[in-house]
Amino acid sequence: MDKPVLRVGLIGSGFMGKAHVFGYATAEKVFDLPARIELHTVADITDDAAARAAHAFGFANATSDWRAMVANPEIDVVNITSPNALHKEMALAAIAAGKHVYCEKPLAPTAADALEMTEAAERAGVKTQVGFNYLCNPMLKLAREMIEAGELGEIRGYRGLHAEDYMADASGCYTFRHDPAGGGALADIGSHALATAEFLLGPISRVMGDCVTMIPQRPDGYGGKRDVEVDDVGRAFLRFANGATGSIEGNWIATGRKMQHDFEVYGTKGALCFSQERFNELHFFSTADAPGRQGFRRIEAAPTHAPYGNFCVAAGHQIGFNDLKAVEVAGYVNAIHGGADEPFNFRKGLGIQTLVERIQQSSREERWLDV
Amino acid sequence: MDKPVLRVGLIGSGFMGKAHVFGYATAEKVFDLPARIELHTVADITDDAAARAAHAFGFANATSDWRAMVANPEIDVVNITSPNALHKEMALAAIAAGKHVYCEKPLAPTAADALEMTEAAERAGVKTQVGFNYLCNPMLKLAREMIEAGELGEIRGYRGLHAEDYMADASGCYTFRHDPAGGGALADIGSHALATAEFLLGPISRVMGDCVTMIPQRPDGYGGKRDVEVDDVGRAFLRFANGATGSIEGNWIATGRKMQHDFEVYGTKGALCFSQERFNELHFFSTADAPGRQGFRRIEAAPTHAPYGNFCVAAGHQIGFNDLKAVEVAGYVNAIHGGADEPFNFRKGLGIQTLVERIQQSSREERWLDV
Amino acid sequence: MDKPVLRVGLIGSGFMGKAHVFGYATAEKVFDLPARIELHTVADITDDAAARAAHAFGFANATSDWRAMVANPEIDVVNITSPNALHKEMALAAIAAGKHVYCEKPLAPTAADALEMTEAAERAGVKTQVGFNYLCNPMLKLAREMIEAGELGEIRGYRGLHAEDYMADASGCYTFRHDPAGGGALADIGSHALATAEFLLGPISRVMGDCVTMIPQRPDGYGGKRDVEVDDVGRAFLRFANGATGSIEGNWIATGRKMQHDFEVYGTKGALCFSQERFNELHFFSTADAPGRQGFRRIEAAPTHAPYGNFCVAAGHQIGFNDLKAVEVAGYVNAIHGGADEPFNFRKGLGIQTLVERIQQSSREERWLDV
Amino acid sequence: MDKPVLRVGLIGSGFMGKAHVFGYATAEKVFDLPARIELHTVADITDDAAARAAHAFGFANATSDWRAMVANPEIDVVNITSPNALHKEMALAAIAAGKHVYCEKPLAPTAADALEMTEAAERAGVKTQVGFNYLCNPMLKLAREMIEAGELGEIRGYRGLHAEDYMADASGCYTFRHDPAGGGALADIGSHALATAEFLLGPISRVMGDCVTMIPQRPDGYGGKRDVEVDDVGRAFLRFANGATGSIEGNWIATGRKMQHDFEVYGTKGALCFSQERFNELHFFSTADAPGRQGFRRIEAAPTHAPYGNFCVAAGHQIGFNDLKAVEVAGYVNAIHGGADEPFNFRKGLGIQTLVERIQQSSREERWLDV
Repeated sequence: MDKPVLRVGLIGSGFMGKAHVFGYATAEKVFDLPARIELHTVADITDDAAARAAHAFGFANATSDWRAMVANPEIDVVNITSPNALHKEMALAAIAAGKHVYCEKPLAPTAADALEMTEAAERAGVKTQVGFNYLCNPMLKLAREMIEAGELGEIRGYRGLHAEDYMADASGCYTFRHDPAGGGALADIGSHALATAEFLLGPISRVMGDCVTMIPQRPDGYGGKRDVEVDDVGRAFLRFANGATGSIEGNWIATGRKMQHDFEVYGTKGALCFSQERFNELHFFSTADAPGRQGFRRIEAAPTHAPYGNFCVAAGHQIGFNDLKAVEVAGYVNAIHGGADEPFNFRKGLGIQTLVERIQQSSREERWLDV
Repeated sequence: MDKPVLRVGLIGSGFMGKAHVFGYATAEKVFDLPARIELHTVADITDDAAARAAHAFGFANATSDWRAMVANPEIDVVNITSPNALHKEMALAAIAAGKHVYCEKPLAPTAADALEMTEAAERAGVKTQVGFNYLCNPMLKLAREMIEAGELGEIRGYRGLHAEDYMADASGCYTFRHDPAGGGALADIGSHALATAEFLLGPISRVMGDCVTMIPQRPDGYGGKRDVEVDDVGRAFLRFANGATGSIEGNWIATGRKMQHDFEVYGTKGALCFSQERFNELHFFSTADAPGRQGFRRIEAAPTHAPYGNFCVAAGHQIGFNDLKAVEVAGYVNAIHGGADEPFNFRKGLGIQTLVERIQQSSREERWLDV
Repeated sequence: MDKPVLRVGLIGSGFMGKAHVFGYATAEKVFDLPARIELHTVADITDDAAARAAHAFGFANATSDWRAMVANPEIDVVNITSPNALHKEMALAAIAAGKHVYCEKPLAPTAADALEMTEAAERAGVKTQVGFNYLCNPMLKLAREMIEAGELGEIRGYRGLHAEDYMADASGCYTFRHDPAGGGALADIGSHALATAEFLLGPISRVMGDCVTMIPQRPDGYGGKRDVEVDDVGRAFLRFANGATGSIEGNWIATGRKMQHDFEVYGTKGALCFSQERFNELHFFSTADAPGRQGFRRIEAAPTHAPYGNFCVAAGHQIGFNDLKAVEVAGYVNAIHGGADEPFNFRKGLGIQTLVERIQQSSREERWLDV
Repeated sequence: MDKPVLRVGLIGSGFMGKAHVFGYATAEKVFDLPARIELHTVADITDDAAARAAHAFGFANATSDWRAMVANPEIDVVNITSPNALHKEMALAAIAAGKHVYCEKPLAPTAADALEMTEAAERAGVKTQVGFNYLCNPMLKLAREMIEAGELGEIRGYRGLHAEDYMADASGCYTFRHDPAGGGALADIGSHALATAEFLLGPISRVMGDCVTMIPQRPDGYGGKRDVEVDDVGRAFLRFANGATGSIEGNWIATGRKMQHDFEVYGTKGALCFSQERFNELHFFSTADAPGRQGFRRIEAAPTHAPYGNFCVAAGHQIGFNDLKAVEVAGYVNAIHGGADEPFNFRKGLGIQTLVERIQQSSREERWLDV
């Protein structure tokens, strides 16, 4: 019981704020964390909203003044789940106050902002994290280990996707996600496809983008129409530093798709195939299997695939989306108090942001760009 | 913050004990429970084991004396996750002390014991619960609602399964699960298949059993062999009160299967097909679809399928096994403090136990039996 | 071009007659048959129908007198695709005339009839065949070879199915398939499930049946109703001579199912899983795979799986239902002219028929029966 | 029996030659063709090879002189299945002799050659056909009909693939498929992906290519190495004339993939998803389905999906790869003798060829190109 305490200040209490709270609650039960979590203060736009969130989530305090919270010496880590456009100001303030900062993705509307945040954090020596929860899946960890161990041989080809349909309805209103600064399908979810691609194969060195707006106007919510400049579909050809080539697509108008965060990796000795639609499975083809017995093999998540065993003692029981967040939280707490590296720090987030912008630029200029 | 407090005493700190703790932690974050949960005391075989569990799980107190804990007036509900053979004594003591009792399945080694427990609880007027977590899946709730609403028409046929492979290795030792009193694949997991069948179609009225022992001896753990009398595979033909007929199988030697808790339901107007291997999906065939456009449709769990939305704000994100336990816990807390019925009380557990015994008896006597 | 000629006489020109003709046409192109096929005469109920069939199918002659055709010394083999009730008379006449006989399944309405036909053929020394085309699938051959080679270890459990929905509509009229002599779902398609079970695991030695009529009356086609006595669903528990146990189900009211001829085989070292809905695949689990890399592996039909390579030079191209018939035909021609054994002779058909009747009897008498 | 006769001359007796013969044999049995097929002459490189092919396939005559065959007035249609580089010379000779010409894809090594062939045929007024057999699948016809009928609403996005692994082994020798004139994965199989894309969505108007060589050298078969210039993977971004955007990939080094000819189409009201790996299925999502009941629906090929019913009388039985060829043949015979349009004539083949070259050029020049 003599563990250090990690006192959390949360900004924002919407979907992702809630997910952070779930993550802390589960992480503490599931992992033997090097610190005890204390939900210290939640900040939201109004006192009322903050009080409701504190009550619902179990925070001891509530405030509508995020600046005061960030400055509070009792807070150790600041979790930022506010809209994208506010990330930079909040993160810089928290870093200036010496706090660790855990920021939802995308890190900032522009790579320039993300760079500023990253450099500030590195100078201050605080621990940072960006929320790339899909990468916390034990099956992605398995995939990376298999690739690194050479089970697929030399990697040649990659196809990645993140397609959903939450913007497929053209009568849906213009939102902050349509803001030219940081908006669009590529930035919003294509970034996940890029993060997974680099998580598995390493750095992307060159891109050719194809970003298209299919719904050129949306209701502005006040009876009028507003032009949309950001992409509904963002595609890219990719070159990886390891010599492989591939492609990704981010798409938020893919009618019927709820979570098509998929990839296929092809190597000289084998292949992997994955869909987030069934994310407790990884499909593996190996040329080492006997002739006439080869085929894609459905590996079900099992305790041999850490950290699945922290959640379920037996194979096939399956973890859920919120459990991915708990893995993410645990990785961050281990970085702060356990001496581990941050799994996905600001520099990593900056890298993804930079990739997104390069692809957008490449699409506008209709030419390949180095990253 | 003026919610009543529900003070929990837990007996047992193994896999299922841990699952209960996860369940409480998640349920409190995810649902707006009518009571606040307090992890009061955990009891285990030794003081040390109990202290470790208290530390790991967050209980305030630890004890090796479950009787004292059960008698403690500060405890409101007793959760029993000890081996099957101890359920009755513990539950009766807790009921005698006026506690609510939440007992893992199977309720007791014999239906006679389960009946005694059930009647004691009903006389005492305490709230009871048996842990049938697979039934807490929003997709099973959806399936039942679709059946009740007549979307499948009149139900004619049913096939249910619960197959795993945790006993497939004949060199695995004899365990308490092989005990003739309450052991065997049918009791251990076939009971889940039966619970799901009744959850969906209502009472089973007649059974014909086929219980077979495929591994007649197992190592006794001391260098010798011990005869196994219980079934490795338990099958049954079924008659339902609603006129449907069907079959189930419980199988713990199904090499390669980790969680084949599956069912298919066939009605006059449609069909449902489900596998726990992909338990965030339900496959639905409807004869109302246009000719040439009919087919089994993969419905992905979404916020429209309560209580999925408490966990994830969007379709396709998926809940995990531990989330099912949180749903189960929430249902029980709502029964104790919210005026709701217990989702799966002792009488329900008794019913499943009775079915299991009837099928075993039917198999021995090689004849159909009424339930 | 000096191959012997096999002159075919076909009785019946409906669905199965057509399938036989397709089978001959394809078999001749795909395989290097030991004989050249000559479509000599087709017999049907009227001269007109026979003439139309001869024209459509490419027979040189047509007749409404099957007896004359059977007696014609120019005919070598008689293919019987007429309704079940006529099989015996026709087959006995053909055998008496010294013809080889190729009869669609079921061989006859009763096992007694089938026995008479079988013994007559064996006495006459003619080659016989019954049309069990699902068994001609290269993937089933592969499954059998894997089992025989011990790749699954000792076989313990089996689940088999043949479910369709062609009788699911209660307003469908009474047909010859509802005739108490030889009718019902178990006889009609459950027989396929039984044939596959024995094909893979060897003889079934004991059965317990559960045959149920779910639609007790059907329109008689003349404005009235007619009672149905045969089963709509036929289930059975099985004991195999090799020590394995299992179950099958035949079901013709499984709404939404078009071709659910499926099986799962569980052994000590591995498992197989198959669905006729995707019959160019076989799913294989092996405990010999590395830990953390195990899973059901989707083997796609390939030239290594004879005789797939006769149809397609590369894996994954897939054969179709009619190709299964061509394999069946080729096996039979090889038996007549190539010295091979008949793949599925009358005695085999008699065995399946006997199983069906034993299961029906077992269901009526509500007790296990030896076969 | 007074049908006209269509006398076929076949050049080449390898895989595709055999497929043509299967196609004729099956088409004649399955369809009511407007002409009777006569396998007149087969031409191959040597007299021996030709004689063997004639014997095996059932041609009346054999020759090693394709020119003589093409000039023979008894021949009506010339089927060209020789290597790509010879197509032009043979086709022009046949056209000059007034024959109908049925040529395997790709039509010629270059679009310029293909144009010359197309114009010659159009001037001569002969009927032509290029072998795009995947397009003959009833499920693709269904997909096109659904799109045309507006069941998916306005089409917005497309993803297409044709990936196999027949060139994945770097120790495989240099073949004619690696010839810079007409070789490469994009030309060889990416062309199928392009053909399917246009079949479903109509003309492609603009492309951006990404063609990469991953195996830069291959054994020359004589102990040395030979440089490979053609692509192992060819990708393209696409613009369709109907306003949709999309992408395709052709890949012959996709380890483990045998027939990944897949597509996904996303519209405003629905989506389609297809894989040639299971080509008797089409998956359909419709926003018109009731909330909470939506999902991708697996439509199995059935007699309502013409011409499936010509092969199988009931749903779910499935057609095979060779049956696709029979559909292709039937379409061509109907064009020659039945007054129908050629399903895939030379101009269509020229269009695909042109697309392939534009994508290759775009890749070299690293810029978008109009088609």
